[in-house]
Amino acid sequence: MKSVALIVQKYGGTSVGSIERIHRVADRVARTLQEGSRTVVVLSAMSGETDRLIKLAQQATPTPDEREMDMLLSTGERVTIALLAMELRGRGINARSYTGRQVGIITDSAHTNARIARVTADRIREALEEGIVPVVAGFQGINEQSDVTTLGRGGSDLSAVALAAALKADRCIIYTDVDGVYTADPNIVPAARRIDRISYEEMLEMASLGAKVLQTRSVEFAAKFNVPVEVNSSFKEGKGTLVTKEDTDMEAAAVAGVTGDRNQAKITIVGVPDKPGVAARIFGTVAEAHINVDMIIQNISQTAATDLSFTVPKADLKKAVPIIQAVAKDIEAKSVAVTEAIAKVSLIGVGMRSHSGVAAKMFEVLAREGINIMMISTSEIKISCVVDEKYLELAMRSLHSAFGLDQVQS
Amino acid sequence: MKSVALIVQKYGGTSVGSIERIHRVADRVARTLQEGSRTVVVLSAMSGETDRLIKLAQQATPTPDEREMDMLLSTGERVTIALLAMELRGRGINARSYTGRQVGIITDSAHTNARIARVTADRIREALEEGIVPVVAGFQGINEQSDVTTLGRGGSDLSAVALAAALKADRCIIYTDVDGVYTADPNIVPAARRIDRISYEEMLEMASLGAKVLQTRSVEFAAKFNVPVEVNSSFKEGKGTLVTKEDTDMEAAAVAGVTGDRNQAKITIVGVPDKPGVAARIFGTVAEAHINVDMIIQNISQTAATDLSFTVPKADLKKAVPIIQAVAKDIEAKSVAVTEAIAKVSLIGVGMRSHSGVAAKMFEVLAREGINIMMISTSEIKISCVVDEKYLELAMRSLHSAFGLDQVQS
Repeated sequence: MKSVALIVQKYGGTSVGSIERIHRVADRVARTLQEGSRTVVVLSAMSGETDRLIKLAQQATPTPDEREMDMLLSTGERVTIALLAMELRGRGINARSYTGRQVGIITDSAHTNARIARVTADRIREALEEGIVPVVAGFQGINEQSDVTTLGRGGSDLSAVALAAALKADRCIIYTDVDGVYTADPNIVPAARRIDRISYEEMLEMASLGAKVLQTRSVEFAAKFNVPVEVNSSFKEGKGTLVTKEDTDMEAAAVAGVTGDRNQAKITIVGVPDKPGVAARIFGTVAEAHINVDMIIQNISQTAATDLSFTVPKADLKKAVPIIQAVAKDIEAKSVAVTEAIAKVSLIGVGMRSHSGVAAKMFEVLAREGINIMMISTSEIKISCVVDEKYLELAMRSLHSAFGLDQVQS
Repeated sequence: MKSVALIVQKYGGTSVGSIERIHRVADRVARTLQEGSRTVVVLSAMSGETDRLIKLAQQATPTPDEREMDMLLSTGERVTIALLAMELRGRGINARSYTGRQVGIITDSAHTNARIARVTADRIREALEEGIVPVVAGFQGINEQSDVTTLGRGGSDLSAVALAAALKADRCIIYTDVDGVYTADPNIVPAARRIDRISYEEMLEMASLGAKVLQTRSVEFAAKFNVPVEVNSSFKEGKGTLVTKEDTDMEAAAVAGVTGDRNQAKITIVGVPDKPGVAARIFGTVAEAHINVDMIIQNISQTAATDLSFTVPKADLKKAVPIIQAVAKDIEAKSVAVTEAIAKVSLIGVGMRSHSGVAAKMFEVLAREGINIMMISTSEIKISCVVDEKYLELAMRSLHSAFGLDQVQS
């Protein structure tokens, strides 16, 4: 006997942003059932609701207590699950809403950014046994003290993936406002096309580099428990992107996607004395201030002093500069220079493991366009170059085209 | 060693209707602590929030499932408790919010109108031990299946009283938009004055007759567990009304208050054959239709047929009339007459037990004003007369004055 497929489907805030949109979610749930699958629905709060609640909190007190923020914010998903469950019941579908607690999403106590410790899902298994369609509040859980916690922005993706893992679901579909993961941001690269299949690792690199489709932690979780995740549009019909474990097909292409990141700034310490332990001292001080350094390069020098450049998030620049200036003085460096107008362009692909020459081709393409490379970093499945910010779009489009990612014109 | 007083204080929807009003609640909580009492705060949802959620539900589906309604509506109080708790913490007061579940308010499964089965209050006792100010969500509990339930309109009063009973609190203060219980509705009787002390029984009669200050079930609960309940204004300072067990002071006055009720209509079955079992048949039929009959009179008659009059809620009239007409035909009565323009005026007071002549004086006062009495009913602590609706205000004012309830002019 072939077992009935189990699909976890998750809808984000814009997909449940109004009663009309909740009607459409109900349509889609009904269709899933008609197609013969069992399903569990995971919902976010209505778009705008979380911001409304945060505003109320800030009016109440300048720095709201985090346990109380979780009590407050966790109401948003309860509203949407109740509304969808009652609508489905009104249509004769035996749906029932469940909070994070009722699902058994047990987290640590890091309020507003809790980590899932385990998912019991007992009531969901029972519900499925009884033919009930569970409608589950995303984004929330409880800690061991039975206090409400939330999983941080985008946490509903994580709820859905964790629940899919616990239930050994056949697929976790993340319905959102885009129909999948693209080879590049279509706003920058008009020729970008939707990727049919992408590996967890590639998706992680894409997500952490600014493709905001899936929350990073949910991809890590999916990879760990091998949950096939589909990203699809809740607004139109059609294929989405399947995020899954690496397979040979994926290696056929050297590059899966191109990303751009404008959120870094470059700091250069000029005239660093060439003595042991200097780099450790600089980056130890920066780490103590909880500033993430991304790329580092040290210029080759014939003299006793070198220049050391590294990138930090633009948001941390204000905090970083005085710290760096102090340490530069300490180590008797000449000066500190800051460049904000930089951007990072990256190629990502598991195919790089088997294809050689990707880096060489990337440098060649950029050189042909007259784009100077300021910094380079590489990993097993990624090559990144820092360039002048004004060349970012040009760099992305050129690379996208050169690596054969452009949409085939029909 | 004198023990520190424990006060449960409850604020209704208008008292927490905006951030500014929540600020004022925080002020009052701070003052209670400065005065040396321990306190537990119980809150309703912001005024308007419950209606907003009900509207959303009705847009989702015409007859929303009641379990889902409870999931939806229970979010309102979670918002206010989080906001107040974070504001108090911002002021350096160690407050913490608790949901109905976390308080241990265990109810039956009658969703949207559940009854409290028991209150464990373990976490609240622990919190008080640790010097924490618990801020509790009113109106909600959980059933034995761990599903969220709500206690019906005005249910936050019941939450507060039940929690006060479980904690053996010294007093439960219900802060609302009026400063107490009045001898009559001040909109009708301008000379009405606030009552300092009133017995549970009197309060129950007042509440069920339309004085909307305290939810009836909460008064029953307070009486059962002997919880002293104070009704006071959250908007101004001063004394309120203490609802407590009967004492000798209360018996000094024959009458504690005057109430008026326009919500009844009179049905008369004309020419009812004077045979055994006829009344049982009529009222049995009405009861089967779940219509509450309030007052009944049977006219004395010399013939073999009498007239039978009774009152039913105006809201049930449409349902009641065809049923009564059918039964009237069955028992071979002559006709059925309906009078909607009636009102019931009542005197309430535990003092009636020891003062005779209250009824006689009431009839005399009404007669002097030329007000015809259509029906009379009496109980141990109440006398009610049905009069022509247009005379209700006059009847209330005359009785209020005649029984010495008018405010002493200062």
